[in-house]
Amino acid sequence: MKFGVVARRDKMEALKLAYRVYDFLKVSGYEVFVDRETYEHLREFREEDVLPLEDFDVDFIVVIGGDGTILRVEHRTRKEIPILGINMGTLGFLTEVEPHEAFFALSKLIEGDYHIDERIKLRTYLDGENRVPDALNEAAVLTGIPGKIIHLRYYIDGGLADEIRADGLIISTPTGSTGYAMSAGGPFVDPRLDVIVIAPLAPIALSSRPMIVPSYSTIDVRNLAVTREIILAIDGQFYTYLEPETDIRIKLSPRRAKFVRFTNEVYPKYTMRIKKKF
Amino acid sequence: MKFGVVARRDKMEALKLAYRVYDFLKVSGYEVFVDRETYEHLREFREEDVLPLEDFDVDFIVVIGGDGTILRVEHRTRKEIPILGINMGTLGFLTEVEPHEAFFALSKLIEGDYHIDERIKLRTYLDGENRVPDALNEAAVLTGIPGKIIHLRYYIDGGLADEIRADGLIISTPTGSTGYAMSAGGPFVDPRLDVIVIAPLAPIALSSRPMIVPSYSTIDVRNLAVTREIILAIDGQFYTYLEPETDIRIKLSPRRAKFVRFTNEVYPKYTMRIKKKF
Amino acid sequence: MKFGVVARRDKMEALKLAYRVYDFLKVSGYEVFVDRETYEHLREFREEDVLPLEDFDVDFIVVIGGDGTILRVEHRTRKEIPILGINMGTLGFLTEVEPHEAFFALSKLIEGDYHIDERIKLRTYLDGENRVPDALNEAAVLTGIPGKIIHLRYYIDGGLADEIRADGLIISTPTGSTGYAMSAGGPFVDPRLDVIVIAPLAPIALSSRPMIVPSYSTIDVRNLAVTREIILAIDGQFYTYLEPETDIRIKLSPRRAKFVRFTNEVYPKYTMRIKKKF
Amino acid sequence: MKFGVVARRDKMEALKLAYRVYDFLKVSGYEVFVDRETYEHLREFREEDVLPLEDFDVDFIVVIGGDGTILRVEHRTRKEIPILGINMGTLGFLTEVEPHEAFFALSKLIEGDYHIDERIKLRTYLDGENRVPDALNEAAVLTGIPGKIIHLRYYIDGGLADEIRADGLIISTPTGSTGYAMSAGGPFVDPRLDVIVIAPLAPIALSSRPMIVPSYSTIDVRNLAVTREIILAIDGQFYTYLEPETDIRIKLSPRRAKFVRFTNEVYPKYTMRIKKKF
Repeated sequence: MKFGVVARRDKMEALKLAYRVYDFLKVSGYEVFVDRETYEHLREFREEDVLPLEDFDVDFIVVIGGDGTILRVEHRTRKEIPILGINMGTLGFLTEVEPHEAFFALSKLIEGDYHIDERIKLRTYLDGENRVPDALNEAAVLTGIPGKIIHLRYYIDGGLADEIRADGLIISTPTGSTGYAMSAGGPFVDPRLDVIVIAPLAPIALSSRPMIVPSYSTIDVRNLAVTREIILAIDGQFYTYLEPETDIRIKLSPRRAKFVRFTNEVYPKYTMRIKKKF
Repeated sequence: MKFGVVARRDKMEALKLAYRVYDFLKVSGYEVFVDRETYEHLREFREEDVLPLEDFDVDFIVVIGGDGTILRVEHRTRKEIPILGINMGTLGFLTEVEPHEAFFALSKLIEGDYHIDERIKLRTYLDGENRVPDALNEAAVLTGIPGKIIHLRYYIDGGLADEIRADGLIISTPTGSTGYAMSAGGPFVDPRLDVIVIAPLAPIALSSRPMIVPSYSTIDVRNLAVTREIILAIDGQFYTYLEPETDIRIKLSPRRAKFVRFTNEVYPKYTMRIKKKF
Repeated sequence: MKFGVVARRDKMEALKLAYRVYDFLKVSGYEVFVDRETYEHLREFREEDVLPLEDFDVDFIVVIGGDGTILRVEHRTRKEIPILGINMGTLGFLTEVEPHEAFFALSKLIEGDYHIDERIKLRTYLDGENRVPDALNEAAVLTGIPGKIIHLRYYIDGGLADEIRADGLIISTPTGSTGYAMSAGGPFVDPRLDVIVIAPLAPIALSSRPMIVPSYSTIDVRNLAVTREIILAIDGQFYTYLEPETDIRIKLSPRRAKFVRFTNEVYPKYTMRIKKKF
Repeated sequence: MKFGVVARRDKMEALKLAYRVYDFLKVSGYEVFVDRETYEHLREFREEDVLPLEDFDVDFIVVIGGDGTILRVEHRTRKEIPILGINMGTLGFLTEVEPHEAFFALSKLIEGDYHIDERIKLRTYLDGENRVPDALNEAAVLTGIPGKIIHLRYYIDGGLADEIRADGLIISTPTGSTGYAMSAGGPFVDPRLDVIVIAPLAPIALSSRPMIVPSYSTIDVRNLAVTREIILAIDGQFYTYLEPETDIRIKLSPRRAKFVRFTNEVYPKYTMRIKKKF
């Protein structure tokens, strides 16, 4: 088995735990790689084990950090590598264990006592071309100027779903339903479901409601106010300014995110984390 | 082919159109039955064609009325008979054609130029026993005294999903997502999806959000304030007062509702009807 | 100075603290009365000091309990007597001190080191006649059958404000803004404001928004579906079934509720209690 | 009497009506001025009557356009000049008459058959200094990067009101309550009230509710994530990027906006316009 190790860069505690995980796995006889950015923040890893995330070709990636760190790994790795998340973030919807459980979790992983939780991702096509990362949480079409509403129409499989004047439109996976889509009024969606949440952000018309559509839907978004700049934001991490006439199409990605899990529990695991947001 | 005809009882226009539909189908050589209540409000049907809804055993039921009339037919028929709804109601989320299209629609039906839209229903078990009709829209667990909150816990497949103090809890199908669940803050759900919406009604804690769960979920609701009377309301039509300690379990029904449709269109058909609610 | 003492009846701890407060005030030389219901739950008070709440004619009432106990005192006393609330409830929006501060608070009260916080109340006229208690929190016009929507029009100073199909309509004071009105989507209202919140409960049309109107407004509510039974609920405590044609008028009451306060603090005092609801 | 005339610049119909209003008032013997930008879009006005908005010193300004045009006039004039709005916009919450009533309205104005509707405005101080226009609708503190949440604390009269992670915070007048604040979940506020609405925009914590506070409140907003750029938007028209450490204080402006009205009607005038938004 080969492992990758990635840590949150802004927290020494996370970097140090990453080193201990790396060390433990090396000592146990496995091949272990560490990503370049983690290495740049803690020089203790052996330089020959350092690789850019894009070149990771391992069986598992151990991520020490929060949901943001996991999203970064998801955006940059090229293969569908299962992730074991060790929570050093605030909410930790995607992480599986707490730091004090890290080595127990690694043992279970090595023994094969785990299962893989697959999550859908969304792929965005701009004028027919996919040049942005897949979204594990959401693709958001937003006003380029905060506070200036944009005027959009969106279509499901070619049929007009709604026309809105709003701050934006959030197209979210079940994984992302506890994030930006929920701030926009969307529901909690069981992560086992193959559905997409579409939630208008601060729409003028309150009849514009969040929608749940099948994951096999093709969602097209048109900007009607062509003088107004719009932004595409993937998972709150990757931003692109779009030409007003850009054709925006969002569909299920052929890739899925894979997470190492030790239980099948959904309730109250996720619903209790929602409470912590308050 | 055998047909059933049912009309909204409080609208003479609907009863008269029902008679014309009945007459047209008889003249075309089909066996046609009319339900007893429709007959009681318009005595022109032949008495030997009159049957209680419970005994309908036909290929199609033509319903002239609104969603309420369709729900009544659904609750009382014993077989899964496809319904063609002719809209004489306000919103008509379930009906397929307008009155002026009635005979054109019947012709297409007779010619086989249609398809069947199947919708899931929810079955409620009270202390393990199913003694209430299946819900096509929603099963609602409500306070027995309007304005007095109840204290509930609900579980998905045995895992605690949430604990609420609220006016009630609405467990809805995608079909019902545009109804009571939406008034409680739930999203629009594409009718093609096999999911259940769970929406707390006026909860004290605003962290209690609507949820979307798989249709194969077992939902258990427990009343924690055992001195407080609760009500079970099925589709806003069938009401039962429950003993406080009643075990309430809601699951996918083995039965589905079937509707005659002439198009596969979901968007903008349903989303535009939401706008009409405003 | 004369004092009244009232306790929550279902909590022995509250009854016992009430006795200690009573004893402390007696020993300090004051005239002290206890209400009949408190006495019936703890027989230690001297019988000659027992009075029904309706006959209380004292300078201050010390209430040991939660918001529910304070509402009961407000509904039944006939004079505007300042209340000192000692919190033995869950949230305690109306109470001023915690049990461990009780005697310190009484000392400050006796020394005159306090101020009076006046809160508006709403008076309801049914067919022109006021025969229900004033509302300190809210007057709610609700469906008589939970889950069956009612059809209402409401008017501000004679002008049509909105027409709704909903579970009900909540007319709330700023004091009540953190209660039922908030569950219906209303905002937090600073208790110093002389305004009324009008919030539709689970309306079908989401364009029916909560409203803030001047406290001098006359609010008239008409039931359009005269076959549908409606309920008037005052502060979630006093319930009346209304004839469908009843004229419902709600106005500022000439009476105010008075609370003993030791600080003028509004923020974060009330906003932090909202957080506790979650 | 002296008049000013201002038209929406992007609508020839509005410019032409402005010319007719100008001509009518000139012929009636009044002194009439037209603003420079209106003149630049329709050269028919006499050049000696052209003035920048900033130099208008007239008794009334007749504005032909929508709420956007009125906001522009409010932001740029230096005196509190009553505005008569002739609606050539979409919703027209601020305008008083429709184009076909324009000359009838002018006659009533000349005859003195009108009253003045005064509306509060909000003044923003940045590091103690007021260098932005007063807000007739709202002052919004927004994320500088759409989709990247900001972390704010806000205080009412020095007391902590809430701490939020959100897209922004909207501080609105009653006039603005039907605008951006409503998209963020705020209520309709009667324009006669002297209150301020504070509404978080897409907050992570749904316990962060809109608030209604007295108009004499001092509202302070602090940016806790000092690496994050923030924007101040006044009435959706005037934008400033702020240094992260900027002290933001919002208070009632000493200036009010004044509108010519022919009726005192609030209901259903404003509530029906809300319906049109849907």
